Amino acid sequence: MKIKRIKVTPIAFRDAPLLNASGIHEPYALRSIIEVEGDNGHIGLGESYGDAPVLAVLKAMEGSLVGLSAWDLNGLRARVVETVASLADGVVAGAELAPGSHPSKQVANAYSAFEVAFLDLQARSLGIPLVELLGGAVRREVPFSAYLFLKYAEHIDATYKPDRWGEAISPEQVVAQAARMIEENGFQSIKLKAGTLLGPDHEAACIKALRQAFPEAPLRIDPNGNWSLETSLRIAEVLAGDLQYYEDPTPGLDGMAELHRRTGIPLATNMVVTDFDEFRRSVAQNSVQIVLADHHYWGGLRDTQILARMCDTFGLGVSMHSNSHLGISLMAMTHVAAAVPNLAYACDTHYPWQEEDEEVIQGGKLPIRNGCVAITDAPGLGVELDQDQLAKLHEQFLAIDIRSRDDVRQMRKYQPDWETRKPRF
Amino acid sequence: MKIKRIKVTPIAFRDAPLLNASGIHEPYALRSIIEVEGDNGHIGLGESYGDAPVLAVLKAMEGSLVGLSAWDLNGLRARVVETVASLADGVVAGAELAPGSHPSKQVANAYSAFEVAFLDLQARSLGIPLVELLGGAVRREVPFSAYLFLKYAEHIDATYKPDRWGEAISPEQVVAQAARMIEENGFQSIKLKAGTLLGPDHEAACIKALRQAFPEAPLRIDPNGNWSLETSLRIAEVLAGDLQYYEDPTPGLDGMAELHRRTGIPLATNMVVTDFDEFRRSVAQNSVQIVLADHHYWGGLRDTQILARMCDTFGLGVSMHSNSHLGISLMAMTHVAAAVPNLAYACDTHYPWQEEDEEVIQGGKLPIRNGCVAITDAPGLGVELDQDQLAKLHEQFLAIDIRSRDDVRQMRKYQPDWETRKPRF
Ligand SMILES: [Mg+2]
Ligand SMILES: [Mg+2]
Repeated sequence: MKIKRIKVTPIAFRDAPLLNASGIHEPYALRSIIEVEGDNGHIGLGESYGDAPVLAVLKAMEGSLVGLSAWDLNGLRARVVETVASLADGVVAGAELAPGSHPSKQVANAYSAFEVAFLDLQARSLGIPLVELLGGAVRREVPFSAYLFLKYAEHIDATYKPDRWGEAISPEQVVAQAARMIEENGFQSIKLKAGTLLGPDHEAACIKALRQAFPEAPLRIDPNGNWSLETSLRIAEVLAGDLQYYEDPTPGLDGMAELHRRTGIPLATNMVVTDFDEFRRSVAQNSVQIVLADHHYWGGLRDTQILARMCDTFGLGVSMHSNSHLGISLMAMTHVAAAVPNLAYACDTHYPWQEEDEEVIQGGKLPIRNGCVAITDAPGLGVELDQDQLAKLHEQFLAIDIRSRDDVRQMRKYQPDWETRKPRF
Repeated sequence: MKIKRIKVTPIAFRDAPLLNASGIHEPYALRSIIEVEGDNGHIGLGESYGDAPVLAVLKAMEGSLVGLSAWDLNGLRARVVETVASLADGVVAGAELAPGSHPSKQVANAYSAFEVAFLDLQARSLGIPLVELLGGAVRREVPFSAYLFLKYAEHIDATYKPDRWGEAISPEQVVAQAARMIEENGFQSIKLKAGTLLGPDHEAACIKALRQAFPEAPLRIDPNGNWSLETSLRIAEVLAGDLQYYEDPTPGLDGMAELHRRTGIPLATNMVVTDFDEFRRSVAQNSVQIVLADHHYWGGLRDTQILARMCDTFGLGVSMHSNSHLGISLMAMTHVAAAVPNLAYACDTHYPWQEEDEEVIQGGKLPIRNGCVAITDAPGLGVELDQDQLAKLHEQFLAIDIRSRDDVRQMRKYQPDWETRKPRF
């Protein structure tokens, strides 16, 4: 089975004014939707970052993959390496909160994007769910967590009406957000994005409020490396008994290692261990205890499996990281998570933040029940592309001027003197 | 595609009187040939150890896999775990030179045996070479090394006529063996099995003679952990400039680590790193620099790929270990080696020692040209079972009384006071 056609379509969808360590989400999130057509007529789907540097590589790949065997992942990697090398230097760095959009990850993220589509094409051609190509499901339902954000009611430069979630600044508002998200999706675990301008003490108070409201739920806080070691130590004392894990409180492998040494709290990361070399360095100094895998930059679904096996080998836990995404990515995460025996934590997903009318797959948004996404017996990823929706979201991409995620730039609209500074607290 | 039928057939084939650290090879080597038939009529092939403890597990699996999806490798692993747990304890330990026959490796080796057959069945059903399921070939020809042995002209209890290789005791005879093996197969690299009763100085002299006869060939010596640290250090001084790597000179992760610390010579192993936990421990103290992978006990072809990726991550080299084997194993090794980008050393194989009339695959022994085995475009492993040969070799298995490899017992026929002692020198 040879590749006959590749199509990469950049899209934009509405994104809520969610606060984070860099600043605040822009009003639109960008993604790329990938279609890989085999000479048997089947089409494999992929979804990845839509930031300009990533998109440039993905678009450049459109021609170079035609004629390749859909089984030849090593050939795919070689062609990605060639393409990246052939592109001019000086691509713009993407937002650091989306590790896969960083220029140093160009090969890994382009490979990842197509790898999923190749595997989807393989599985569809065979008429089997993608998870079977990954060794078969060890679970049919994959647990996800409620991913809470401190947020404003609407964007400062709003061109569309406010999202349905409203403001979440006070601990009470955060608890209300959690209650609603859990009510709608049945999540069992809760994560709070922190590191925002509201500061560590306020965010710790939000965790305390969540603990009171949801006494049994595993809780996590993720300041995205925006707290100094001292601040991280101080908040660790406050929250030690409340956290399932402490996600990227402080930057760097060294800082994380020292924090763990001094507190014993399990540390999770999607920032200091983002490739296999960082994995090695982390193991050497016990920087983190849980790796949040993400197939979008770890090298696709098979490399995510390899990462999970490495975590198993070195006694680390494994869970999953998420950026703003649609249903194709959700199902890719679900299929690989279903095949990872040692996945012991609910995965992250931004999916509940996505608007109902902006899904690119047929049938609209996928259901999350009891906090889980289920794999089905449908071939491949089990979802089909809605071409009308794809066209609509592509038009939206063309209509806006955001071409790379920049949460700092967006925050400057609120606070003109906002600076990139890390750790900020 | 479901599994319809499993057939495990123990076989025996003639094995030359090859000297090693345990003693000497017995006149017959044992293997198991595995046929896994899908409900589409395709049959996947596997080959593994034939020692009683392994065979007991493989035979016990014959019934338990029927009805399983041929894609469900996680399901396969679960059923192997169940089966091993259900078998009575007290299975006899296999020879320690075949790590996969050790009882602690029961799950890994039974899983490995069937995993290859499952993958072969998958690939045959698709009409594609097995290597494509592994991500595609990064090389079409896989290099192997000339695997030399010190040996007697014939077995002490010979029931068949002497092999065609004659005696190899003196350095001149070893060089002659190398010359013939290279003449016939085109090997570029040379490995000498050492640790024999002839002693380290004699074996070092053989390496010196090989160096003189083959000035450019990468050379390796493998005493199978039969030398003390002191002996290993002493021989390292003699051979340092001659060796590509020093394979398992001394036992244990600690001993190997100290040897490397004191000599800087790259150490290879198939003895101290035989599973992922040993890999982790080796990394922690830099015990070895090259891991000799072997899909028969590492968990099949996919786990061998994972091992190779781990080696890449941790800066270790990767090559391949071999026990006495036939063509199915040779092709399984070749397909996985073809898909491992960081394979930078010629692999080991006992294949040249196998007699012409004792191959189980159609067409007889596979060619080794320019030291390489080629993958072809034929589906799966690219080889077909010769049922007449299988029946003949199974009859041979039934006719002999060897049921577990025991090179110590065999050596006692030559030296009744021969003892298991390690390190011996
Ligand atoms: Mg994070
Ligand atoms: Mg060895």
